[in-house]
Amino acid sequence: MRIAILAHEKFPDGAKTATGVLRYGTHDVVAVLDRDRDGERVADCDASLPDAPIVASLSELNEPLDALLIGISPIGGGFDESWRPDVRAALERGCDVISGLHYFLEDDSEFRTLAEEHGCELWDVRRPPTDLGVADGVADSVDATVIATVGTDCSVGKMTTTFELVAAARERGVDAAVVPTGQTGIMAEGWGYPIDRVVSDFAAGAVEELILERGNDHDYLFVEGQASIAHPAYSGVSTAILHGSMADELVLCHATDRERFHGFSQALPTISDFVALHESLAAPVGGSEVVAGALNTRTVDDDAAADAAVEEYADALGLPAADPIRQGPDAILDAVL
Amino acid sequence: MRIAILAHEKFPDGAKTATGVLRYGTHDVVAVLDRDRDGERVADCDASLPDAPIVASLSELNEPLDALLIGISPIGGGFDESWRPDVRAALERGCDVISGLHYFLEDDSEFRTLAEEHGCELWDVRRPPTDLGVADGVADSVDATVIATVGTDCSVGKMTTTFELVAAARERGVDAAVVPTGQTGIMAEGWGYPIDRVVSDFAAGAVEELILERGNDHDYLFVEGQASIAHPAYSGVSTAILHGSMADELVLCHATDRERFHGFSQALPTISDFVALHESLAAPVGGSEVVAGALNTRTVDDDAAADAAVEEYADALGLPAADPIRQGPDAILDAVL
Repeated sequence: MRIAILAHEKFPDGAKTATGVLRYGTHDVVAVLDRDRDGERVADCDASLPDAPIVASLSELNEPLDALLIGISPIGGGFDESWRPDVRAALERGCDVISGLHYFLEDDSEFRTLAEEHGCELWDVRRPPTDLGVADGVADSVDATVIATVGTDCSVGKMTTTFELVAAARERGVDAAVVPTGQTGIMAEGWGYPIDRVVSDFAAGAVEELILERGNDHDYLFVEGQASIAHPAYSGVSTAILHGSMADELVLCHATDRERFHGFSQALPTISDFVALHESLAAPVGGSEVVAGALNTRTVDDDAAADAAVEEYADALGLPAADPIRQGPDAILDAVL
Repeated sequence: MRIAILAHEKFPDGAKTATGVLRYGTHDVVAVLDRDRDGERVADCDASLPDAPIVASLSELNEPLDALLIGISPIGGGFDESWRPDVRAALERGCDVISGLHYFLEDDSEFRTLAEEHGCELWDVRRPPTDLGVADGVADSVDATVIATVGTDCSVGKMTTTFELVAAARERGVDAAVVPTGQTGIMAEGWGYPIDRVVSDFAAGAVEELILERGNDHDYLFVEGQASIAHPAYSGVSTAILHGSMADELVLCHATDRERFHGFSQALPTISDFVALHESLAAPVGGSEVVAGALNTRTVDDDAAADAAVEEYADALGLPAADPIRQGPDAILDAVL
């Protein structure tokens, strides 16, 4: 699928979805739209990303295109009216539009009308289906070994760790797949449910449905975690994923800069408390075991200091650990497989 | 408010909402509708309930009426078409209709039209408001001491314990109030959010909003818990209530007949594991402590055997316990206040 990714004024650092889809998606990215970087290239901004041109607007693109993907999500998840000409232009040339905004494109009458006229689809990734049900507590019935990434907080690298582990497993010839539970993962895989948007009664059921759908097709499923079971606001989402997935193994993701939950006054528990809490909460349902750790060392400039931070984290866990980006995910994967 | 309660073919044992509203609501119940018990009285069916006549249909009621309340909820939460004449008759005489069904009366075009014509309201209790937000982790900022009922499973008596404790506290002259989180409690109090129906990202935020709204008006708030933090399907709801309420104290509710989660293959953890799990999960956010237990001994016929079961439960907890219905809630209340 040939796509363009909208990331106006935010690429790359403020465009987590755009960089996630570039890095982990299976799409052919024709261009990134960022009016502040017109004429630059993706690789100039971040050499670790697959390269693509950056243009100021969709109307500058002449290549055939299947879809426009909204690759940024402002605080609040609103639609920025300055993006309207790009979305309009995409629909007018028959492209689908994929969005993870809280603002649903399907509820926008201009976009809905254009989509109908031009026979294209509006996919609001954050709108879960309406036919989800309650979990039956049977996700452990699948053949695959199920591994879930869990976290000490939001934005510590659960999605990145999940995708890096699957890529590394595949490189080793292992049949592994991602179970996406958040918008960027869903956009990258073209599949999954945004568990944080599911009615809380059905959140575990939605995860279970994903596991049952793919769990006999692969040897390993890597479930993308969300937030943290100790988070003041989102712990219900994390608990639903833990119990809904009935994961066999957990990888505890953490970041070097994190002493309090981001945006909250509450301090993070210790790493050993996190391990104990996950295992005791999982015990009645899935019986998951923490087998490794992933440490996001982005805030550490010096490689030696980052290595030391990872070593300290592994000691606190009593388990193998790595920064899956800086050091690669092999140490984690060895513990998982 | 003068209400009639619809409970066709299910009163009293299959009509949990009807009996809950009769027992704990502040309404004046004019009649119960149950076509199978036409001419009987509520007190004949259950002597512990406030008395009211039972009639076969709303059209037989001549007394003035403010609202019809749907007091039964079939599996799946659908609307039974045999109830339509009663709902229609209520709206035609200008009565509001209150429902906790999954099927929303507001989405029924006949009911919506009748409600508009006759100037009455359809209150779908299970439809949460659309403007809920994320928790800020600040529910502990209120003046009130916050007590939450938590459970080993669904249907072990969390709502009953909550209401019995508040009634007993008020009898002692203590300024206490219920924070309802489920449909029956909301119907009884005329206030609250159905947390199991809230989008999972906002579930803790909805609880926090309730606490902040009333937490400076009372000395004690008793939060109605839902399900169990160890439940295979609903643990996300329970965790959101635990963390959203930041309760100071917890009362662990359990039932004598329960060895596995009802309808699931998973065994319940031990009582001491439940205490440890609640306290370790609460520690990072609210720091709640389990202070007492409530045991539902309904399945035990003999009073002496029930007393022994409560004593055994108290021993397992290492805390005071009681069956709040059979023995009264005083032992629990003494531990809470």
